[in-house]
Amino acid sequence: MTDKKYSRFTTNHKVRPDDIDMFNHVHNSIYLDYVLAARYEQMELFYGMSMEEFLGMGYGWVVKSVQIDYKRPLGLGDHFSVETGIIEINRKGCRVTFDIINLKTKKTSTSGWFDFVMIDLKTGKGVEVSEEMVRLYSI
Amino acid sequence: MTDKKYSRFTTNHKVRPDDIDMFNHVHNSIYLDYVLAARYEQMELFYGMSMEEFLGMGYGWVVKSVQIDYKRPLGLGDHFSVETGIIEINRKGCRVTFDIINLKTKKTSTSGWFDFVMIDLKTGKGVEVSEEMVRLYSI
Amino acid sequence: MTDKKYSRFTTNHKVRPDDIDMFNHVHNSIYLDYVLAARYEQMELFYGMSMEEFLGMGYGWVVKSVQIDYKRPLGLGDHFSVETGIIEINRKGCRVTFDIINLKTKKTSTSGWFDFVMIDLKTGKGVEVSEEMVRLYSI
Amino acid sequence: MTDKKYSRFTTNHKVRPDDIDMFNHVHNSIYLDYVLAARYEQMELFYGMSMEEFLGMGYGWVVKSVQIDYKRPLGLGDHFSVETGIIEINRKGCRVTFDIINLKTKKTSTSGWFDFVMIDLKTGKGVEVSEEMVRLYSI
Repeated sequence: MTDKKYSRFTTNHKVRPDDIDMFNHVHNSIYLDYVLAARYEQMELFYGMSMEEFLGMGYGWVVKSVQIDYKRPLGLGDHFSVETGIIEINRKGCRVTFDIINLKTKKTSTSGWFDFVMIDLKTGKGVEVSEEMVRLYSI
Repeated sequence: MTDKKYSRFTTNHKVRPDDIDMFNHVHNSIYLDYVLAARYEQMELFYGMSMEEFLGMGYGWVVKSVQIDYKRPLGLGDHFSVETGIIEINRKGCRVTFDIINLKTKKTSTSGWFDFVMIDLKTGKGVEVSEEMVRLYSI
Repeated sequence: MTDKKYSRFTTNHKVRPDDIDMFNHVHNSIYLDYVLAARYEQMELFYGMSMEEFLGMGYGWVVKSVQIDYKRPLGLGDHFSVETGIIEINRKGCRVTFDIINLKTKKTSTSGWFDFVMIDLKTGKGVEVSEEMVRLYSI
Repeated sequence: MTDKKYSRFTTNHKVRPDDIDMFNHVHNSIYLDYVLAARYEQMELFYGMSMEEFLGMGYGWVVKSVQIDYKRPLGLGDHFSVETGIIEINRKGCRVTFDIINLKTKKTSTSGWFDFVMIDLKTGKGVEVSEEMVRLYSI
């Protein structure tokens, strides 16, 4: 890990009714989907290479590890932002940290990190991230 | 059913990556969730009574029957609109028809209808829709 | 449609906690997933051709239309059976009817039908069901 | 954390078709739901107090933090076991570790831990786990 500072990006979304569980809150596993959705949008908008383009090239980013802390649940109708950013990237993959913020209260709902690795879609096996791709994401 | 014409409303959304299934399309059951999400938003924006307010009053709208026709699947990253509108409402409930349109192609992805009935949240049993509520939704 | 009588098959499952929604019942779209899961298992067990084999041959069964009637919701921890059976099959596809039964009360939770068509996985387009496959499913 | 050894419990399940995502594997957030489902069943079977009983008493266990490592994805039709067990429990909550094993290959698919806290369903706030409950779960 270098001391390089990478950019952070923010995407806004809204809770969907089917995200709510028996506790009248967004179900715990759904927050992972919120981060993934935000990250896909940010790949396209800010890094100039959408997940669809990755898939078209025969590659995919898949999740290797996740840690998530649940601080304040989101509820029905809530609007929230997902702020994400790479904190480390190398030939083996990258770590992306995230904060999901309730836009009404401005308070953190959940935060944590995802470790992503690249896979070859045909083999399903992990592959090295090319130097060009590392550069592309090192903004 | 009277010959009254009711308003139709449109809400725009985007496919979330977790909506995609093994066929690389939005999974068939998820379209129901898209309609529900649109309907909740339209209750708040256009009818002036959000689902949250309903719930606060001790009532909920639940689905009694659905018919859905799948014409053209949505895929990763697609933007779509959900147009819905009541075609019949009475003391027993209402029928809402919908069309989900792919905003890139302007073609219909799915269409169909939902029959909703009101329930009392405490008993979980169906209750009559009050005349005031029928009027409120008869726009 | 001939007057042939086709077999009906039953699969037992249990509600998963993430299936429960804000009304403390199984979410309405999830019943479609229960039918699909039962149907996949029944393809393998009773028709001798699993969905995985279909996919391996380059084909998939996808849903063209669904109608579903919600009678009595399932709740947390409920065990249920899904009974399905073809009522019509031809070169264009098949119609499968289903009943989801709460195993505690023996009462019907939901019932309805699915129309399935076959697609070529490469093109994503519908293809004719071969006579051999029609025969295979006409049990 | 004491040096007490707690029991570990195993529950078997099967991948549901709607769990599969665009990479033809179980979607990353669904593994959290598998652990939750296993844990609910184990509460009932092995600890003698089901989640439904908890809810009936006005309490719920909710997730405070999760860490999960994805080693080998599960696919369509796979059977798997979820082994879980408390490694620490006190008045503030408990940590449960888990391993999801593919029953065909006997290899670990995912592993990690959940931190649970108790909440009062009326207030939605965390409450202390009673000594009796700590004892009940300390098997």
